[in-house]
Amino acid sequence: MRRQFVVIGLGRFGTSVAKTLSDLGHDVLAMDKNEHAVHALMNDVTQAVKADGREEETLRALGVRNFDVAIVAMGDDLEANILITLMLKEMGIPMVVAKAQSTQHGKVLEKIGADQIIYPEQDMGIRLANNLIRSNVLDFIELSQDYSIFEIAASTRFLKKSIGELDLRAAYGINVMAVKKKGGEIVVAPGPAYIIEDKDVLVIVSSKNALSKLPD
Amino acid sequence: MRRQFVVIGLGRFGTSVAKTLSDLGHDVLAMDKNEHAVHALMNDVTQAVKADGREEETLRALGVRNFDVAIVAMGDDLEANILITLMLKEMGIPMVVAKAQSTQHGKVLEKIGADQIIYPEQDMGIRLANNLIRSNVLDFIELSQDYSIFEIAASTRFLKKSIGELDLRAAYGINVMAVKKKGGEIVVAPGPAYIIEDKDVLVIVSSKNALSKLPD
Ligand SMILES: Nc1ncnc2c1ncn2[C@@H]1O[C@H](COP(=O)(O)OP(=O)(O)OP(=O)(O)O)[C@@H](O)[C@H]1O
Ligand SMILES: Nc1ncnc2c1ncn2[C@@H]1O[C@H](COP(=O)(O)OP(=O)(O)OP(=O)(O)O)[C@@H](O)[C@H]1O
Ligand SMILES: [Ca+2]
Ligand SMILES: [Ca+2]
Ligand SMILES: [Ca+2]
Ligand SMILES: [Ca+2]
Repeated sequence: MRRQFVVIGLGRFGTSVAKTLSDLGHDVLAMDKNEHAVHALMNDVTQAVKADGREEETLRALGVRNFDVAIVAMGDDLEANILITLMLKEMGIPMVVAKAQSTQHGKVLEKIGADQIIYPEQDMGIRLANNLIRSNVLDFIELSQDYSIFEIAASTRFLKKSIGELDLRAAYGINVMAVKKKGGEIVVAPGPAYIIEDKDVLVIVSSKNALSKLPD
Repeated sequence: MRRQFVVIGLGRFGTSVAKTLSDLGHDVLAMDKNEHAVHALMNDVTQAVKADGREEETLRALGVRNFDVAIVAMGDDLEANILITLMLKEMGIPMVVAKAQSTQHGKVLEKIGADQIIYPEQDMGIRLANNLIRSNVLDFIELSQDYSIFEIAASTRFLKKSIGELDLRAAYGINVMAVKKKGGEIVVAPGPAYIIEDKDVLVIVSSKNALSKLPD
């Protein structure tokens, strides 16, 4: 289903959200008070408008109240960020996502009705730190305090051995859920007979403790 | 192994990287030219210093050349960002990660030897857009152009049915790799007898196409 999104504030974050939604086939109205920001995105979205998001009249004229989702993406101007979020919720937009600068700011946004609050810089900081301390971890999803899904480069010590032979579950308490092969092929739920090859990336469910015991 | 990290530029991203590394038990030297930024992090890291990262003498005096990883995290001042990255590589730090403002900036960083280039705002923009268009997707890891791992809220239509009965693999081409239960418990590799309960979150491997065919 094609949905209508409005993105207000076209910094790096807002621009990236707007472009991606548009690439994924959705209608995107992008707005910034700065002409350059609007210009840069003009050919990538349904409509790009130079306007201050605080102008209620402009939002009404553009029919924003009928949109499905609004993303309030400016950072430095907290007042504008909060005011616009409040206005969009009062207009009745069912899903308003706001970018917060700090947890304090996030609490205010929550109180005034933001449906989702996002901290792009802080979240990526946490992700990078986690990736850096485990040099073989390429990506992860946290499942719980203890468990995560990790995408890891297979240890050279695993090369040419089968999953059954390595007995990863018993030896390390990890479960291999998929293998991403050099050419891009994905092997889902590889069985014990699967032999690990050079450049294989393993997708595993593992406790954080178990992971640190894996050989490099 | 406890490793030594230096983070230069304590905006939201840099602060978050420094704090997380420190929480994970590593040595962190955090540096910013702005006193307030340094002060805010003082009690969270091994050492917090007010200094301009461009001052080579200061970096030497702090023994930065012996660190394992450096993160160059300032955004707006491209000149400082590039100069500092270059200096750190010339000092022989094996792993220098730099935050880029744009792909153009990223190319320069690559040329001067940055080992990893990160675009926090752009990456989170892509992540948010993907999460928004699939309202039941909570998180994901892209495995290939076609396949991803998705963390999804189980459809209400799946409630009280077993994985075998739903035959998710044959019906939708998805594989359930783990279930995250309401209380936080993780069921790894649930068998066909597993019965889906209220508030279950399913971790699946699926093609993007298959996912869009799942009931809400
Ligand atoms: N009231 C407003 N109406 C429309 N656009 C606005 C308004 N206030 C700020 N903006 C725009 O929002 C954009 C992003 O703002 P800002 O630079 O403060 O955010 P940021 O957090 O630094 O962004 P990022 O880190 O994603 O690049 C800017 O292009 C700015 O012109
Ligand atoms: N040469 C420098 N040496 C040390 N610190 C610096 C230097 N240049 C900038 N900084 C610091 O880097 C921090 C982040 O810079 P800036 O605000 O430009 O980045 P940003 O991309 O907006 O950050 P974020 O989006 O993560 O909040 C600031 O606290 C600033 O004082
Ligand atoms: Ca900015
Ligand atoms: Ca930013
Ligand atoms: Ca992820
Ligand atoms: Ca800033």
